[in-house]
Amino acid sequence: MILDIINKKANNYELTKEELETIFMGYLKDEVKDYQMSAFLMAICINDMSDSEIFALTDIFIRSGEVLDLSFIDAIKVDKHSTGGVGDKTTLIVAPLVASCNVPIIKMSGRGLGYTGGTIDKLESIPGFKVDLTEEEIKRQAKEIGIVITSQTKDLAPLDKKVYALRDVTATTNSIPLIASSIMSKKIAGGADKIVIDIKVGNGALIKTEQEAERLSSLLIKIGSYYQKEVRTVISNMDRPLGHSIGNKLEVLEAIEVLKNKEKGHLLELSIDLATKMVSMGKEIIESDAKKEVIENLETGKALNKFIEFVKYQGGDLESLTIESKVYNIKANKSGVLKDINALSIAKLSESLGAGRKNKEDNIDYNAGVVIKKEIGDEVKEGDILANLYTNIDNPKFNLEKIFEIS
Amino acid sequence: MILDIINKKANNYELTKEELETIFMGYLKDEVKDYQMSAFLMAICINDMSDSEIFALTDIFIRSGEVLDLSFIDAIKVDKHSTGGVGDKTTLIVAPLVASCNVPIIKMSGRGLGYTGGTIDKLESIPGFKVDLTEEEIKRQAKEIGIVITSQTKDLAPLDKKVYALRDVTATTNSIPLIASSIMSKKIAGGADKIVIDIKVGNGALIKTEQEAERLSSLLIKIGSYYQKEVRTVISNMDRPLGHSIGNKLEVLEAIEVLKNKEKGHLLELSIDLATKMVSMGKEIIESDAKKEVIENLETGKALNKFIEFVKYQGGDLESLTIESKVYNIKANKSGVLKDINALSIAKLSESLGAGRKNKEDNIDYNAGVVIKKEIGDEVKEGDILANLYTNIDNPKFNLEKIFEIS
Repeated sequence: MILDIINKKANNYELTKEELETIFMGYLKDEVKDYQMSAFLMAICINDMSDSEIFALTDIFIRSGEVLDLSFIDAIKVDKHSTGGVGDKTTLIVAPLVASCNVPIIKMSGRGLGYTGGTIDKLESIPGFKVDLTEEEIKRQAKEIGIVITSQTKDLAPLDKKVYALRDVTATTNSIPLIASSIMSKKIAGGADKIVIDIKVGNGALIKTEQEAERLSSLLIKIGSYYQKEVRTVISNMDRPLGHSIGNKLEVLEAIEVLKNKEKGHLLELSIDLATKMVSMGKEIIESDAKKEVIENLETGKALNKFIEFVKYQGGDLESLTIESKVYNIKANKSGVLKDINALSIAKLSESLGAGRKNKEDNIDYNAGVVIKKEIGDEVKEGDILANLYTNIDNPKFNLEKIFEIS
Repeated sequence: MILDIINKKANNYELTKEELETIFMGYLKDEVKDYQMSAFLMAICINDMSDSEIFALTDIFIRSGEVLDLSFIDAIKVDKHSTGGVGDKTTLIVAPLVASCNVPIIKMSGRGLGYTGGTIDKLESIPGFKVDLTEEEIKRQAKEIGIVITSQTKDLAPLDKKVYALRDVTATTNSIPLIASSIMSKKIAGGADKIVIDIKVGNGALIKTEQEAERLSSLLIKIGSYYQKEVRTVISNMDRPLGHSIGNKLEVLEAIEVLKNKEKGHLLELSIDLATKMVSMGKEIIESDAKKEVIENLETGKALNKFIEFVKYQGGDLESLTIESKVYNIKANKSGVLKDINALSIAKLSESLGAGRKNKEDNIDYNAGVVIKKEIGDEVKEGDILANLYTNIDNPKFNLEKIFEIS
């Protein structure tokens, strides 16, 4: 029976919802083995899925676990998701920005598995910050200050989690239908009414081409409309890291600089773009009006104040947020113009410094990371510092040519 | 690294021999996991392999184990392989037939995993028959009577065995390149100079279409010529069982009837065809001359005598080869003409009666099996016996309509 279903997909026939349920729920119950599921996932990666297969799979993922009820908030619940990139600290900026516009943010985030930490890891790098809130605490905080970011208390889409872990070790991550149903199942189980999704494209992202990003975007919107959840997407570049800092504490510090309106560039623009869409959806106003409000709250410091209020409410102490580690430098080995900074290589370097975790059990060094000191297009001289490396590892290794292109 | 290789195949790029070696030898050493290999095998099933990939894989399979040295026989070593079918007892007929023409047969066979036993299981159903010969015994017997069939003493192509077991449970059996390299690696490691391969096509076989059979045939010949081993193929039908009997002892008894020249039809014709090709290759004579000799040896009883000599030499006692089991009948539930006998359904029935093994550890009931009592095209009346079922299981279950089509 299971083999028949795998075989059907391998021969590029459309599966019924019952067939998808048999194999995926069988996998959740360990009746279908890892080696069977991975063969099946590979068949999906190569032969693709139809829209109705994708809707069915999303549904199976959602029903595999609990669905959050956020009805205690009497407003439209807007959530934000990023497909993941290097130096992506936009949630730390966007969440207080949106909340400062009186659109409530209740976000359940996971820990990161990969080159750098997730949002929860970044927040936890703030001394005292509490990420495990009870349901009562979440409700009270949401009502009082309109912003909560906490680690997942409920078992949301556990089947997606199990499938994702297998995809990660079997070269089956790169399937647009699987990515789409994974994202949407988590967001819908998380109780969102409307969702903004930041689709990262480039060498430092899962999605490598504009074309794939466009297909993912249209699939996410389609799945959303199937569930009556409005979805808007942003497609953003991830050939280069987002901002200058990569690493947990370092990224919190950079987010604060942006909220102080002291940083310009791609990170700021993307944050404004995401916040604009969220405010527009949450307040049901046009984006140009939303954008005005977002920029005003950034310029007047209302967004920064919301961030400070939020961190304090969850026990964090921004005063003692300092980097405690050795610092090494990457220096230019020749003179020229800085042509490129490779996001993926920076990510791998950052992980090697201690900023990420490969396995759930690994510990993150919150102090570790990279700060890039030059912009693309800058003239550099031999010996100039291109980046600071923060780490507790002695004499960290790096391949300068892979990270920085000078010509 | 492993993920890069899987990904490359998933994206339909040709792999180098080094890449194939990395992943397959990694699998043999358990460094590559089952769930990674199954994803990779699925990518091969869907995206196919180039000729040079197939040659490389065959080579990797061969070098994963020992290669038999049959140079103690001063003649061309001809071997025969069948891709597997229901009621396929041709080796029991063809081997003595060919040996009676003075072409030596030294065959290492495996036990069967599937609906019915393999050649070794069938021979072992003869009381006293010894299947585990030492190297010395093999050499002596080959020289004295020119025919030996023994179980595999050496570890031939162990990687192929490991990969095959995984393919069996992941719906990745159905790949012509994987089938071709699996067959050829085993035969070449078995020491053959020239090989005749019986490709079964139909509902009771792995290969379902003529087109796939043609491709497999041309691949087998190509791999053979890469190794300077002449390969000839026969494509034979497997929509219906081969002969009337399915089950270990029952098939030995039927083979003896054929060797006594008492049975006509497909089984006899196929056996003559295979034997002709083997004698032609072994003696380097044209097929029409070989066929004359084969038919003569069948008609004069030389082939039967060779079989009796061979069984006796390996300790078997044909006198005490009798079926000891209960007998049930399948009776026609309506009158009409017998239109079809479904090979796959007969095979499954036969296994349920005890004639096959699903796992290596399972015991086979040598007495169990099915004897079909009607031919396609026969008129049958309601109540006529269509088949005898031999089994020690009480009241065996069967689905008449799935096995016999009467109209």
